[in-house]
Amino acid sequence: MTAKLVYFFGGGKAEGGSEMRNLLGGKGADLAEMSNLGIPVPAGFSISTEVCKIYFDHDRHYPQELDQEVRNAVSQVEEIMGAKFGDVSNPLLLSVRSGARVSMPGMMDTVLNLGLNEETVQGLIEQSGNERFGWDSYRRFVQMYGDVVLGLRPESKEEEDPFEVIIEEAKEARGVKLDTELTAEDLKDLVVRFKQTIKDKKGMDFPTDPWAQLWGAIDAVFGSWMNQRAVTYRRLHGIPGDWGTAINVQAMVFGNMGDDCATGVAFTRDPATGENEFFGEFLINAQGEDVVAGIRTPLEITRKRSMELAKQRGSSEEERRDNYLSLEEHMPEIYEELEGIYKKLEHHYRDMQDIEFTIQRKKLWMLQTRRGKRTAEAAVRIAVAMAEEGLIDKNEAVMRIMPEELDRLLHPQFDPKAEKNVIAKGLPASPGGASGRVVFHAEDAEEWVERGEKVILVRIETSPEDIGGMHVAEGILTSRGGMTSHAAVVARGMGTCCVAGCGALNINYSSKEMHIDGYVLKEGDHISLNGSTGEVMTGQVPTVEPELTGNFGRLMEWADEVRKLGVRTNADTPKDAEVARQFGAEGIGLTRTEHMFFEADRIKAMREMILASDEAGRRGALEKLFPYQKDDFYGILKAMRDLPVTIRTLDPPLHEFLPHEESQQQEMADEMGISLEDVKQKVVQLHEFNPMLGHRGCRLGIVYPEITEMQARAIIAAACELTKEGINVYPEIMVPLIGTREELAHQREIVDRVAEKVQEEYGVRVNYMVGTMIEIPRASLIADKIAEVADFFSFGTNDLTQLTYGYSRDDAGKFLAAYDEMKILPEDPFQVLDQEGVGQLVLMGVEKGRSTRPDLKIGICGEHGGEPKSVEFCHRVGMNYVSCSPYRVPIARLAAAQAVLRRSQ
Amino acid sequence: MTAKLVYFFGGGKAEGGSEMRNLLGGKGADLAEMSNLGIPVPAGFSISTEVCKIYFDHDRHYPQELDQEVRNAVSQVEEIMGAKFGDVSNPLLLSVRSGARVSMPGMMDTVLNLGLNEETVQGLIEQSGNERFGWDSYRRFVQMYGDVVLGLRPESKEEEDPFEVIIEEAKEARGVKLDTELTAEDLKDLVVRFKQTIKDKKGMDFPTDPWAQLWGAIDAVFGSWMNQRAVTYRRLHGIPGDWGTAINVQAMVFGNMGDDCATGVAFTRDPATGENEFFGEFLINAQGEDVVAGIRTPLEITRKRSMELAKQRGSSEEERRDNYLSLEEHMPEIYEELEGIYKKLEHHYRDMQDIEFTIQRKKLWMLQTRRGKRTAEAAVRIAVAMAEEGLIDKNEAVMRIMPEELDRLLHPQFDPKAEKNVIAKGLPASPGGASGRVVFHAEDAEEWVERGEKVILVRIETSPEDIGGMHVAEGILTSRGGMTSHAAVVARGMGTCCVAGCGALNINYSSKEMHIDGYVLKEGDHISLNGSTGEVMTGQVPTVEPELTGNFGRLMEWADEVRKLGVRTNADTPKDAEVARQFGAEGIGLTRTEHMFFEADRIKAMREMILASDEAGRRGALEKLFPYQKDDFYGILKAMRDLPVTIRTLDPPLHEFLPHEESQQQEMADEMGISLEDVKQKVVQLHEFNPMLGHRGCRLGIVYPEITEMQARAIIAAACELTKEGINVYPEIMVPLIGTREELAHQREIVDRVAEKVQEEYGVRVNYMVGTMIEIPRASLIADKIAEVADFFSFGTNDLTQLTYGYSRDDAGKFLAAYDEMKILPEDPFQVLDQEGVGQLVLMGVEKGRSTRPDLKIGICGEHGGEPKSVEFCHRVGMNYVSCSPYRVPIARLAAAQAVLRRSQ
Repeated sequence: MTAKLVYFFGGGKAEGGSEMRNLLGGKGADLAEMSNLGIPVPAGFSISTEVCKIYFDHDRHYPQELDQEVRNAVSQVEEIMGAKFGDVSNPLLLSVRSGARVSMPGMMDTVLNLGLNEETVQGLIEQSGNERFGWDSYRRFVQMYGDVVLGLRPESKEEEDPFEVIIEEAKEARGVKLDTELTAEDLKDLVVRFKQTIKDKKGMDFPTDPWAQLWGAIDAVFGSWMNQRAVTYRRLHGIPGDWGTAINVQAMVFGNMGDDCATGVAFTRDPATGENEFFGEFLINAQGEDVVAGIRTPLEITRKRSMELAKQRGSSEEERRDNYLSLEEHMPEIYEELEGIYKKLEHHYRDMQDIEFTIQRKKLWMLQTRRGKRTAEAAVRIAVAMAEEGLIDKNEAVMRIMPEELDRLLHPQFDPKAEKNVIAKGLPASPGGASGRVVFHAEDAEEWVERGEKVILVRIETSPEDIGGMHVAEGILTSRGGMTSHAAVVARGMGTCCVAGCGALNINYSSKEMHIDGYVLKEGDHISLNGSTGEVMTGQVPTVEPELTGNFGRLMEWADEVRKLGVRTNADTPKDAEVARQFGAEGIGLTRTEHMFFEADRIKAMREMILASDEAGRRGALEKLFPYQKDDFYGILKAMRDLPVTIRTLDPPLHEFLPHEESQQQEMADEMGISLEDVKQKVVQLHEFNPMLGHRGCRLGIVYPEITEMQARAIIAAACELTKEGINVYPEIMVPLIGTREELAHQREIVDRVAEKVQEEYGVRVNYMVGTMIEIPRASLIADKIAEVADFFSFGTNDLTQLTYGYSRDDAGKFLAAYDEMKILPEDPFQVLDQEGVGQLVLMGVEKGRSTRPDLKIGICGEHGGEPKSVEFCHRVGMNYVSCSPYRVPIARLAAAQAVLRRSQ
Repeated sequence: MTAKLVYFFGGGKAEGGSEMRNLLGGKGADLAEMSNLGIPVPAGFSISTEVCKIYFDHDRHYPQELDQEVRNAVSQVEEIMGAKFGDVSNPLLLSVRSGARVSMPGMMDTVLNLGLNEETVQGLIEQSGNERFGWDSYRRFVQMYGDVVLGLRPESKEEEDPFEVIIEEAKEARGVKLDTELTAEDLKDLVVRFKQTIKDKKGMDFPTDPWAQLWGAIDAVFGSWMNQRAVTYRRLHGIPGDWGTAINVQAMVFGNMGDDCATGVAFTRDPATGENEFFGEFLINAQGEDVVAGIRTPLEITRKRSMELAKQRGSSEEERRDNYLSLEEHMPEIYEELEGIYKKLEHHYRDMQDIEFTIQRKKLWMLQTRRGKRTAEAAVRIAVAMAEEGLIDKNEAVMRIMPEELDRLLHPQFDPKAEKNVIAKGLPASPGGASGRVVFHAEDAEEWVERGEKVILVRIETSPEDIGGMHVAEGILTSRGGMTSHAAVVARGMGTCCVAGCGALNINYSSKEMHIDGYVLKEGDHISLNGSTGEVMTGQVPTVEPELTGNFGRLMEWADEVRKLGVRTNADTPKDAEVARQFGAEGIGLTRTEHMFFEADRIKAMREMILASDEAGRRGALEKLFPYQKDDFYGILKAMRDLPVTIRTLDPPLHEFLPHEESQQQEMADEMGISLEDVKQKVVQLHEFNPMLGHRGCRLGIVYPEITEMQARAIIAAACELTKEGINVYPEIMVPLIGTREELAHQREIVDRVAEKVQEEYGVRVNYMVGTMIEIPRASLIADKIAEVADFFSFGTNDLTQLTYGYSRDDAGKFLAAYDEMKILPEDPFQVLDQEGVGQLVLMGVEKGRSTRPDLKIGICGEHGGEPKSVEFCHRVGMNYVSCSPYRVPIARLAAAQAVLRRSQ
């Protein structure tokens, strides 16, 4: 073990830097980077992620060299900060924080004010000239150390923190309400009682040796990498467990030494809208955790924001000056320094930063900088703006947006014209509209959603324990906390609508109800949230389609300039086709014709066909369906004029068109003038043990060629009519479920024959193609043969995944949940294309298909066509296009562009 | 078109030979070969199969050169036969016969006596000195030509042949019963009436120009290649349509010129038993068709057989001399010549021959020689005997037997001790025992079998139209015809039991009943046939296992010396295992453990497990199953001592163990002391839309690891007990339905952990393996990864075929029948492994598996493991063994040997 384990930073220099995130964690790397940039950072050092790995690989033992390296680093910190760890008169206090490769907010543990004991606390009091601050720091340390390192933190929220109980008792005895009202003497007494509690509960004395404290804290922070919350978070976010965390040990600076102190967090641009405006919150005389935890509502950093807030609340300038004075006005020089620093950071990192700072006795210390989380809307605006500012280029702007993020932007927003009963207003913490039924506990949210409900999670404030419930909720509403509170940060990260700090709410967890301005809302009641305005409304508010303009449009243009893959949509109606065109769809990749048969007047003819005992009977019924089908195709081809439209011939098994409830069967029998027995007999006759593997797809069109004939006739007739009207149409007739060359040859012969006849009748020619879905494993295996009779392939990766895994989507839920939990599958293969297995068949299909037909047009029309990782795969294997639901078209466009850029990197 | 179209033979020379079967057809090649061997063959020529192809490719037109080549060949024939085509005084008459690459008995058309007209018939009479013969030949020619060339043959058997009607009328008018009783004058009159009928029905005169007759016959014979019967036959026998047929035009010789004439067919060895004894039948004063059609019962060729027959029938020597005199006695010199020829032919062809000959005025002419069809029993005996005689080597003997043929030999025969009510005796035309219900029409046979019945087809005589019904029948019984009748030849080819020429039968087609010696048997009644003795019995006679000794054993030994593939069996019980060992199984390739759970006392515990609401409940129920399972494994491992036994862990979905009828559910509820509702709810809860793709296989053992634990414990405990008893056991634990590496790793961890514990408890070690079925397409695709945690692979090609094609075996019947008819699938992929598609996945699985684990043991346990073509494939891809049902073990052994020999050819 010869590698370096500990990396020092501070005093305008550092052993690490931004590029060392994997080793130092995000926070450690950025602290080193800031130090290198000459930004004032409290000195400290990072213990690398390698140590974490070694720690867990060696039964929680450290490499031997660590002790000496830590001691050396502490000496360097002492030197730069001019204080000494454990020194009685001028003690250096340390913070010990986790710092993983990617941020896992609130998931792991932190210990602050480390180094205090009965002796060093006197030195702190001496140095600060503030006895109350000294004892407050000490009691905070004992409490935190007791909770985190000694394990007194309650396991669940139902239990109470033993230290909080003592504080409450003390406040009651004193007759005060706030912690800040406790005196130095009170706090000193708390320390005694805290230590006694620790002795009572743990049978040990509180450690007084600062070094013992330090190693205890390091153990605890590394240990927290494996706590349940962190493990769950990693699973949800796909973070590998073997990355490990780094630990940052850093000199403490204090925002709570008095009124010339403060602490704050800020974003270099607005994280909700992306507007290029410095934006942050701070608290005078407070520690950083006070801001983030949302316990005190913080103040604005800029005067502009402060004014806006006052206006929003209808406060007078005097009230504003008394209550919401900005940092810019409080401490103008500090503000100026902060402004210089944030600009330097944003320019250096070429991205919006999320920064934390502390002002200790009018000296500014930067505690953290990191890429700022942002809403999808902000992400787009920031990326486009930065490209326009010349900070990044267009391609980088395109790469900056996670395609999945766009999903939020593309989903319906509240209809501005809809009636809204706004009953309260909070902070617009994460945009978008959401409706759902009120639940008050994260576990309830998970339960309700499990059974198919949509919920809004309502909490006084959220905490990391609520992650699961927040993940499934449509929206989150809190009564406390600001724009950087836990609820707000996490919701933005998830892209979930959130209204935070809505003080009008009066929440009663035990009776499961809340009072808002005279309204009483109970668990299960419907409410709606507008995360873009902060409005809380009763009932379900209707939504409207999103409009895509401005920055979004620019970004999409840039993406389109780069991408090679075409993007089509799956659409069964002219309306869907129109929507998709607006989203940039370049054609239809899948029109399912079977949906057309379910409408009221058509289903009867369909059933007549199914009940027919011979071909003549079937032909008669199909003749009735023909005009409907022709109209359907006319509409959809017209909506997609000038662009190709892939139409799939009948796919589902015929029994899907028959009713299965006796009452409906009776109805059908009456309608068709036959006996219930006849209907029942047909249902029994068509019953299949495994319909997924039964008589469906091209197998229908082969056994009943008259079905394919009718559909081909309807498609070509519609195309001929449109052609005569001067409209360019490009129908692509797609035969599903092909597994042998002969099947497609058989169906193709029918289509070509019918097409010839119909074209002759109309006296025009249409540009049609005949191709197939590749959705049966065998089709990929013999794609070279199939391509001999196909003009195009479209991978039906839903069925291909079902058959390649042997999973039925309808049934697999039961064991896939267990598989997910046991990590037997890295991802749900129905969500993200399984490149390892199914992907081999796709690649094989593409290569073999082109081996016999080099100009074969190839696409995908499974749901994977709108999933970014899968889109990248489609690009890589050389498909011509992907096809997805209308709302995912922009996501696919962006993902397709990123696929090109990523490949050229 | 410069290639030669016509090939001459005759007079001890020929332009063709045996090696030219593809061009000249089997019959033409053999005629040429015989001619080259100096055997007396009527001169003639073959029109090649190429001409047939050109004919059909060019809208039924011949190449221009054909006319001249035919004329030249006819001249050569004239020269050698000393007669002239169309000559009035010494006319050459010709036969025109089809001759495909492989024999298609009775499927295509033939025209005999061609060249006769009102003038040439006089020449024939002159030459033969037999007026009746002349007119008989002429009326036969007109009738045949009318039927075949002019299309007067009725389409179905219900219609009557117009010529037969006229003959019947003539016989009635004459008051005679037999054709032979008609005089020359009668026959001459028939010719006139035949011609008039043709004129009436076809509006044309019967062609008198011999050349016009010849071209008409050539057209008709080529045309018959495409008739429905021929097309059906080719489909049943897998003969490609584009092979085409050749035509043999040959000088006529006559076996019906008088009592110094005869015609006959013979086999160089007994085609039923394989005994090395010349065996054949002949008729004095008859044409060849009379023998084959079975209209007159023919006589034996050898004296020995004649004596035997007389003995069998209880005839005196005098009766024998009067009625069954053999050719050997009738015409001793001719017999001697024939004996020399047959020995020469068998020696030349090194195989048993089926020959046809005609004796015209004491001169012997050979008309045909070809490989003789034979029963499976005879095939084995002949191959072994020829190898022992030094005619062929052992490997050739092994190659001589079609593995599928053995199926007959391996199936049960009638129990010799069983009570039998023999009601009649016919000829033992095709061996084996068969029971079934009587049907009298081929179409009925097909219908009855379609609905699941076993039938015996009973006919006066069979004809090519009956092929379909013969194919599905268990056995065939005819009242007329000999050992070389249509029924006998076809049944032997199919390996179907047949009793022919059972004269005691009195069949009434219209009332659908038959009378035998006082018994009346109606359609639907049960009868049994013994094709090895000729016995006809009432009812269903019980059967016994076949014994495999003698020739069969020798052949198997020779096969075993050659083959590289191991052959195991699929067996779930110790009894099956014993049977399979006797058939030469070298271990068990698949033991299905689920069958063990269905027995009365076990199913209750199984259901208890399924109904348990938690792991503890499941464990309790599994504990009850454990002793049963251990006993099961003990028994099967012991039966297969010294050989490996692959045991598959639980595979079917749990709902298969619950009753689905309400009455049974109630029973179960009562038995388990729960409510009917509880049972129903569980059934609903476990219901799956596509159980094939649902919660089964390893997915059970992963969600309920306690099941795998119990099974592993039972297997290893049984193995430990046997090991302690000094018995060598090699359990191979096989986890089904693996699709990811993680699944197998998970199950393997359980097995290894449990095995370790059990072995410690018993204090012995057992040699066990853990492996998987490869039956999910994805498993083949990632076989390299799976092999990292597998000791062996066993391809489950049943499921692999289902998933690769997307066919459910339970449901696919509906469309697979249509697919078969439309030739969309060349073969049923569940019968014969689809090498083109599924085979790719198998090959991939083998190659990838061995890429990470070179010593990976690989086998197959799907039903394809006993199908010869699939076995050859398994050999080719390098598997270690195949596993099949006990009765197919010898088939697999032979197929495995042939795979080696075929590859080394």
